Amino acid sequence: MSSVPPKEETITIAKYILKRLVQLNVRSMFGVPGDFNLAFLDFVEDDEDIEWIGNCNELNATYAADGYARIAQSCNSQSLGVVTTTFGVGELSAINGIAGAFSEHIPVLHIVGVPSTNQQKTRPMLHHTLGDGRFEAYTIAAEQFTKCQAILKDSQNAAALIDRVITDCVVWVESFVINHIVDLVIKAGGDVAILVDGCVLRHHAVQETRDFITSTGFPVYSAPMGKSIISETYERFGGIYNGQSTLPEVLKSVESSRLIISIGSIKSDYNTGNFTYHLPPSATIELHSDHTKLGFAVFSGVGMKHLLPKLTKRLGAIDARGRLAPVAKWGVSVPPEDNPLITHVWLWPRMGRFIKETDVILVETGTSSFGALEICLPDHCIYAAQILWGSIGWSVGATLGAALAARERGLGRVCLFVGDGSLQLTVQELSTMIKWKLKPIIFVLNNRGYTVERYLHGEKRKYNDIENWKWTELLSTFGGIEGQTCCSYKVETKQELSTLLDSNHFAKAEVIQVVEILLDKFDAPETLKTVAELSKKTQKTNAN
Amino acid sequence: MSSVPPKEETITIAKYILKRLVQLNVRSMFGVPGDFNLAFLDFVEDDEDIEWIGNCNELNATYAADGYARIAQSCNSQSLGVVTTTFGVGELSAINGIAGAFSEHIPVLHIVGVPSTNQQKTRPMLHHTLGDGRFEAYTIAAEQFTKCQAILKDSQNAAALIDRVITDCVVWVESFVINHIVDLVIKAGGDVAILVDGCVLRHHAVQETRDFITSTGFPVYSAPMGKSIISETYERFGGIYNGQSTLPEVLKSVESSRLIISIGSIKSDYNTGNFTYHLPPSATIELHSDHTKLGFAVFSGVGMKHLLPKLTKRLGAIDARGRLAPVAKWGVSVPPEDNPLITHVWLWPRMGRFIKETDVILVETGTSSFGALEICLPDHCIYAAQILWGSIGWSVGATLGAALAARERGLGRVCLFVGDGSLQLTVQELSTMIKWKLKPIIFVLNNRGYTVERYLHGEKRKYNDIENWKWTELLSTFGGIEGQTCCSYKVETKQELSTLLDSNHFAKAEVIQVVEILLDKFDAPETLKTVAELSKKTQKTNAN
Repeated sequence: MSSVPPKEETITIAKYILKRLVQLNVRSMFGVPGDFNLAFLDFVEDDEDIEWIGNCNELNATYAADGYARIAQSCNSQSLGVVTTTFGVGELSAINGIAGAFSEHIPVLHIVGVPSTNQQKTRPMLHHTLGDGRFEAYTIAAEQFTKCQAILKDSQNAAALIDRVITDCVVWVESFVINHIVDLVIKAGGDVAILVDGCVLRHHAVQETRDFITSTGFPVYSAPMGKSIISETYERFGGIYNGQSTLPEVLKSVESSRLIISIGSIKSDYNTGNFTYHLPPSATIELHSDHTKLGFAVFSGVGMKHLLPKLTKRLGAIDARGRLAPVAKWGVSVPPEDNPLITHVWLWPRMGRFIKETDVILVETGTSSFGALEICLPDHCIYAAQILWGSIGWSVGATLGAALAARERGLGRVCLFVGDGSLQLTVQELSTMIKWKLKPIIFVLNNRGYTVERYLHGEKRKYNDIENWKWTELLSTFGGIEGQTCCSYKVETKQELSTLLDSNHFAKAEVIQVVEILLDKFDAPETLKTVAELSKKTQKTNAN
Repeated sequence: MSSVPPKEETITIAKYILKRLVQLNVRSMFGVPGDFNLAFLDFVEDDEDIEWIGNCNELNATYAADGYARIAQSCNSQSLGVVTTTFGVGELSAINGIAGAFSEHIPVLHIVGVPSTNQQKTRPMLHHTLGDGRFEAYTIAAEQFTKCQAILKDSQNAAALIDRVITDCVVWVESFVINHIVDLVIKAGGDVAILVDGCVLRHHAVQETRDFITSTGFPVYSAPMGKSIISETYERFGGIYNGQSTLPEVLKSVESSRLIISIGSIKSDYNTGNFTYHLPPSATIELHSDHTKLGFAVFSGVGMKHLLPKLTKRLGAIDARGRLAPVAKWGVSVPPEDNPLITHVWLWPRMGRFIKETDVILVETGTSSFGALEICLPDHCIYAAQILWGSIGWSVGATLGAALAARERGLGRVCLFVGDGSLQLTVQELSTMIKWKLKPIIFVLNNRGYTVERYLHGEKRKYNDIENWKWTELLSTFGGIEGQTCCSYKVETKQELSTLLDSNHFAKAEVIQVVEILLDKFDAPETLKTVAELSKKTQKTNAN
């Protein structure tokens, strides 16, 4: 950050914040106006480089900032998502979105407008307070879910504090353990497989990982949270590894390798087939953002971003059996089915044929986040899902942010896969997409309720049912003009969906589109069924 | 609580909780299912006395529990609102609603389903966790905004913990200072006015307050948060006192009294005309839930609920000038205006003629919460607004809860007054009202944005604009059948609105109804304009 204004100049705190954000490629700011942030919003609205997006509610706004940041990460740029809310009511409405970004290492900056320092001194019973003078309660809560916080109380320290918070949002550390790794690779006779996971994105090691992979030639697999980091059409790409819920042929080739180099792994339940990796620690090297694990030994401070280029240099040259081992082509073909209705087993491979290079795909927690793993992505696609935090409704807000970030970067179409139940939580944000003339395709998987939960518990319970909406009228109700500024479709058969996907008019995605896809209430992707079974077993074992 | 099961019997923890809630007149439970609460929901769904309502999202669910509890309080019953969510994502989405209930002393119980005690021991990287093993982070956050918490870890202590939490939700303390008060009243020659405020509801002193007022005969006024506690048609009722934004004639009669007895006062900014009470402390007696203030002296542990009956006995008998002083009839008449369009100055008195006995009125923070103060309420109406916490969108969720509570108690119509901006935050909860065949009348004040904020800051700023929706299509989009299970109207002129309000079909409120009322973007109630001016002055004084 070289362009700090010289000391002689003065700058308002608001302008300083905005200047820093612009330097970090922030062009859209999310949030909801409230009386304690209005004065700051004047500066935002007047700024030439940053657009105030203005969301329907704060949770949705935070999801949008999260989606925006994920696209920036996937494009390997040092950037972040920004959400601005008001004191108390606004910041607390946002807190689940902030915790999710924290949990999944997404750089989101939350700016909160608060009562003036003078007002805080006397602790009056202002609106949005708890009525007991504890103005600091919200900060205490926020500390639980943030990497770093700063309270701007005077102009002298403000610049330093702002820089510290923004920097903590985007920067990480380094060091190395090369020789040991090279030895292990040689010992394994070069029979090595690489497993790529989500922290590669979170810690800006996408290019380093890609260089490492192409230069070593080892077979490569992705965990669910690592999907789309490595081109799925790459000849050495072998598929998605998700513990015991992996497709059988993929599972076998990963777990029979003599050595696994895992890069950026996040071993959460739904990212590992409910903790069913069968990879012996003694044959696993784990490269993380700030440490490296060789067997049972942990090397703190040795992070993948700076380690990988050195490993590429050393391992790219050695003789490696893994480089020669054949890798079965990844891809699930569209199965022939007599049933004219749409099933999960058919839907996802079929969608794979629809997705094009540079498309951005967002998937909601639920049947979509399991099914979409089977889409074989073309090159340069970006894939985003909130697999660890798993807050339903996230993807709708995130699609707004992703669509803005994709437009700013000239990426392709933005496709959202979301269930009817999840869409109900955050539906109003479709209105903000309409306001900003964004053109995502929103596939609504209508299976009459929370199907993912039916598999976990209460298959036929009423509490897993939801009210059926007129999904194809949402866009027009929220301000779109059907047939002009928006298009809505409802499909029930394979034939109807295929015809729609093949239609040039639809595929060009020139306006925002909703496609309601009718599915059987109890149909689900096979991987979800496996994980649900494994999860039930764990719960039984754990039950007193 | 006499019906504790005898020791020989055993009962599951879930059933014990439900039994206690039923004893406290809880008949509806709000929330969203999630995998960590599904096993508990089986018990809820199977319970004969409690209905699982099932909301669109957790924030809305918490607002609904808040609304439900307010109606119970207004009916003077010891009860509470209950919301059930899942771990992490669910509880954090609810936290703004919980903080609002805490801030305004509304008894809301939040039940959170968490991973099993065994799962928590090893702190695995489960979904909905922060990925760093800090399972307790959510509790730490919740402690900031709750009166009491308990973590149910084993069956032995569970019953005691459940009772402690539920009891803390609904019970309070006592003692007295009668003689001093009687002396002050005599010294003032009986020239006394009573000011009734929100804590009378929160601390179950409605009947005691009413007895005190009718037996002493002193003139009585309400603060905004105390509206509807005292019948506004009572011959000694003088109007709403809101500091310097009070109607002039009411202001004069309150502030010229020699002694003020204030009952249950909550001195927040928007409940006091931005802190502009001109009541000298030396001439003010304040009765609170757990203390009494006489001039500058505070008597801890002396609460109004037990103090009032004793005061009634003593003061009911004394000679009091205040009893004889005339009180001007409260009520704002519908002003004649040439302008055919709807204005705030006309709207609220006109609405006053529509509201009937036992109706329940909910008003959103914004122009509505200022304007509706001028409605002269008929007897036995219940009025609810979130004046201290002021979280926009609250009233939509709260209307769901209030409508359920009103139906359970056989109350009258439920009318919501909400602005277009606020409705956007929580709109999907209309769907839950439709699902449960509730019949509220939802008046949508469409003034194209956040008008209350335009008065505070940024009058013509874009950030105070919002996307205009097709408000009259909301109900049908969310599952209603227009003309059959729901009715929607749009009115622009006084004549149109009057005709609608006078129509018997509409007024009977036999289905859920939305009325979009078009208003000028910059029109607002006079009281809002005054408070905004006062608030701007305070901010200027406080600015460095």
